[in-house]
Amino acid sequence: MDSVVPSWKVKAQAKRQAVLDLIPSKWRLPEPVPAPKNQKNVTGAYVQQFLTPREVEITETDAPNIVAKTTIGAWTAVEVVTAFCHRAALAHQLTNCLHEILFDQAIAEATRLDQAFAATGKPTGPLHGLPVSFKDQFHIRGVETTMGYVGWIGTFEGRTGTGKERVVESELVHEIRELGGVPFCKSSLPHTVMSMETWNNIVGFTYNPSNRLMTTGGSSGGEGALVGMKGSPIGFGTDIGGSIRIPSAFNGIYGIRPSFGRLPYTGAANSMPGQNSIPSVCGPMASSAASLKLMLKSVLATEPWLRDPAVVELPWRDGLAVRPSQGSLTFGIWTTDNTVGPTPPVKRALAMAKAQIEQLGHQVIEWKPPSHQRASELAWGAFTADGGEDIHHHIGLSGEPLMGRVAEEYGTQPSKVTPADKLFEMNLQLFQYRKEYMDYWNSTASLTSTGRPVDAILAPVCPFASMEIGKSAYVGYTPWVNTLDYSAAVFPVTKVDPAIDKVEEAYVPLTDLDKAIHEEYDPEAQEGTPVGLQLIGRRFQEEKILAIVEMLSASLKY
Amino acid sequence: MDSVVPSWKVKAQAKRQAVLDLIPSKWRLPEPVPAPKNQKNVTGAYVQQFLTPREVEITETDAPNIVAKTTIGAWTAVEVVTAFCHRAALAHQLTNCLHEILFDQAIAEATRLDQAFAATGKPTGPLHGLPVSFKDQFHIRGVETTMGYVGWIGTFEGRTGTGKERVVESELVHEIRELGGVPFCKSSLPHTVMSMETWNNIVGFTYNPSNRLMTTGGSSGGEGALVGMKGSPIGFGTDIGGSIRIPSAFNGIYGIRPSFGRLPYTGAANSMPGQNSIPSVCGPMASSAASLKLMLKSVLATEPWLRDPAVVELPWRDGLAVRPSQGSLTFGIWTTDNTVGPTPPVKRALAMAKAQIEQLGHQVIEWKPPSHQRASELAWGAFTADGGEDIHHHIGLSGEPLMGRVAEEYGTQPSKVTPADKLFEMNLQLFQYRKEYMDYWNSTASLTSTGRPVDAILAPVCPFASMEIGKSAYVGYTPWVNTLDYSAAVFPVTKVDPAIDKVEEAYVPLTDLDKAIHEEYDPEAQEGTPVGLQLIGRRFQEEKILAIVEMLSASLKY
Repeated sequence: MDSVVPSWKVKAQAKRQAVLDLIPSKWRLPEPVPAPKNQKNVTGAYVQQFLTPREVEITETDAPNIVAKTTIGAWTAVEVVTAFCHRAALAHQLTNCLHEILFDQAIAEATRLDQAFAATGKPTGPLHGLPVSFKDQFHIRGVETTMGYVGWIGTFEGRTGTGKERVVESELVHEIRELGGVPFCKSSLPHTVMSMETWNNIVGFTYNPSNRLMTTGGSSGGEGALVGMKGSPIGFGTDIGGSIRIPSAFNGIYGIRPSFGRLPYTGAANSMPGQNSIPSVCGPMASSAASLKLMLKSVLATEPWLRDPAVVELPWRDGLAVRPSQGSLTFGIWTTDNTVGPTPPVKRALAMAKAQIEQLGHQVIEWKPPSHQRASELAWGAFTADGGEDIHHHIGLSGEPLMGRVAEEYGTQPSKVTPADKLFEMNLQLFQYRKEYMDYWNSTASLTSTGRPVDAILAPVCPFASMEIGKSAYVGYTPWVNTLDYSAAVFPVTKVDPAIDKVEEAYVPLTDLDKAIHEEYDPEAQEGTPVGLQLIGRRFQEEKILAIVEMLSASLKY
Repeated sequence: MDSVVPSWKVKAQAKRQAVLDLIPSKWRLPEPVPAPKNQKNVTGAYVQQFLTPREVEITETDAPNIVAKTTIGAWTAVEVVTAFCHRAALAHQLTNCLHEILFDQAIAEATRLDQAFAATGKPTGPLHGLPVSFKDQFHIRGVETTMGYVGWIGTFEGRTGTGKERVVESELVHEIRELGGVPFCKSSLPHTVMSMETWNNIVGFTYNPSNRLMTTGGSSGGEGALVGMKGSPIGFGTDIGGSIRIPSAFNGIYGIRPSFGRLPYTGAANSMPGQNSIPSVCGPMASSAASLKLMLKSVLATEPWLRDPAVVELPWRDGLAVRPSQGSLTFGIWTTDNTVGPTPPVKRALAMAKAQIEQLGHQVIEWKPPSHQRASELAWGAFTADGGEDIHHHIGLSGEPLMGRVAEEYGTQPSKVTPADKLFEMNLQLFQYRKEYMDYWNSTASLTSTGRPVDAILAPVCPFASMEIGKSAYVGYTPWVNTLDYSAAVFPVTKVDPAIDKVEEAYVPLTDLDKAIHEEYDPEAQEGTPVGLQLIGRRFQEEKILAIVEMLSASLKY
């Protein structure tokens, strides 16, 4: 007897196909699309062959340089938006990075922007004609939001008949429009949003475009792949434990995890909404640090604290930025969590960044903070306080299975719910951890040549450049930043080079998992995978962190 | 058979006596101290009779004018601190407003400040020699913190052998010392900190010094009585549902409830620590709005965000203050919650403030926000999420009974604890409420003559000036501000005047409680009780709110 295809599979397949069908035939890749093993790297020259030189020029320009042209009318919004739609369509066919396609709406909006410019001679806003992509947690009118759940197809966040379906927009999307930006697609993510790789039952697996044997990271993995392929100049992800930083690092792009309350998240879908001990934040991912700065500055100029109750009234503060005139800075460098040590390419990236910092005349000291393992445990306590109730509810809407890595974490059914008194106790421990960490940070004033506490922390994002598909995962280098609510930006440093990043035969593993990860490290397979690092500042130090990242990136020349 | 005195009573009585014994005999009132009914008002002329003219001059000077003298050496720290110690001692004997007395330590510290000034010719800080009092949630070295719990006597927050007893100081206390301020006493509060009147088994009932037939309010009622009697120029209370604002209004003083994250609370004791849905905040209470501004500005100048993880990096922003050059402002006026309407003196205060605002050339429109009742319910959900576990634990340490009003609210034993998933759902409703309220506030732009949303909301603090002891209580006018995390300041407007504030014979009660409260309203008994109002701004608008309160107060001439 033939097995019956489960209804969730039928629905998922239909949705997947409906999205693909929105790609115009002129933008389809010739069949057969090469398999990952036959064409690992689909960035750069590979994707350029399907684009006109003008499209390559436009899509390889970063956000500030795009708006420098569009706001004076040198480039039209339509040509910019169309070029990115084309490249995004290619990116999707090669990496599965999109969840929703809004090319027609985007080009129509670009047309209106061009008409307005022609009529007034003025741009609509500082982001005039800039295409902006969004992780599929943000609602955009005209399309739906599934957040990777099959049970959300045709609903509003899993509920039917709300009248909000395909109508409501998230606050941030609204602001981007006000600024002249053009939402043009939504990107893939793991269902539940609680995974460091991007896989769901609708769109399937999202590949790393620099090396399709590897994962793009997660949970903002669609943005990672899309921006990594220059299919979008800038897009928004979210980060609750590393979800902006991991895919940014894996894809050789820039991303910032601002502190909670800096950018508006209101009106976006989320896992475990109302969990406010260690909340998710949203932030941009882009091909340059200057793009991130442009986006933060522009969004803050709209005074989002007047429309999102969680946003703090903190305008962009140029005064916080670091300038050469300030003289020498001090960096704390944190190189290992002593559970899974960095693999050779990450070690090399740390050494490169350290050398660069010192060459620029700044100081680097060893960072010996309170246990980051404790921070991860606190985070995990918050993320499982509802016993996985929310996640299992949404998975249960369609009967789809929970994907592998998330199933390992959250089990196949809800577990014990934490009672409020225990949650309060945990919040108290969280506060004490933050206080201890702060005290440690302050104490470094006695170790620096400036007499000030260190200015920023340099750290790996992961112990590996990325994971080969199906190989061991490990998230130990990012959640502490969420536990502390610090501001952190990721920047690319180098790429895996088998000629340099050889297997360390003498490596002494710290743990069984470390052993597995180091044994799985295959320089040949990982060749060309980008390696990024994170730079961490205190809470609400986005201006300072981005200024330092810009300075470092200028000299690292990735 | 004689009943045995329970051990908690013995302990409480000993503690009460130990505090009283710290008042030097020269500062003792002649026995018998008059009973409240024989001497209702113990402020002004009554208390002045026990002070020298110089002591009266000093203690009737507000904080900015005190530091104007001390920082140039015109007044010594010792004479200032000693004068306030004397007046605080009198206040305590007349109202039971103190929990801890640190007169000796304070005078010794003042001596050191004077010596430093003599040696350097410079003040130690902007608060040089300014006495500062603290609600008994703050830890000060040398004395203990009971927070009104008998079971905390001789412990650190109910635990023994921590090594922290009488040694640890709260962050704010530390900062006050850095600024040159002098902690000199700790003030009374209801045990649990969850009541609008101040009563506990250690210190007993705290009276309203302007009318000792009335309550001083709560939970920062000791500060209210102490500052109301000018026994302290400025002190710190805390507010989770009205606890700074209610005693400020009842005592004719100024108080500010800043938004969460503006001032450092770290290292202070609290009820239900870790409850972060609607958290308690700390803020100053003083005899002038200028005093509050001085305090906020001074504390923020110490950059408390570097030492308290919950504090946001928001320095004092003079630019947010309202200036005459800005032209006309618009106020929303909210006059009744439709559950318990304002009694005649509060009605009159509202009318006076409204008239004054209009006379100053500003606009007043009716405030018709989303239900404040819903806000109170959300707050109550947060305050009882642990089922009263924390409160009953601390009451249980000694076996003392829970005081009347709190027992009514929290029962005699813990009730059901909210599970985390329900708490998250509640947090989500809380966020939605905040968003709706924000949208309503923004919508008032279409109603104002300025074209801007209203600048601030004017509202009662309570439907009554204060409660006569044992009469009906009602907290319906303050918790919505906590639910919304808005900044709010209280200012005095008038005093109950039986000749004007007559019983309204034709009053139609809205509810049974409204009927009881209006029937209990006795203009003769309430004579002379201060009536305050609150002015509310959006989140983190402390600068603006204080500037408006200063402007209004200057013309109201309380």
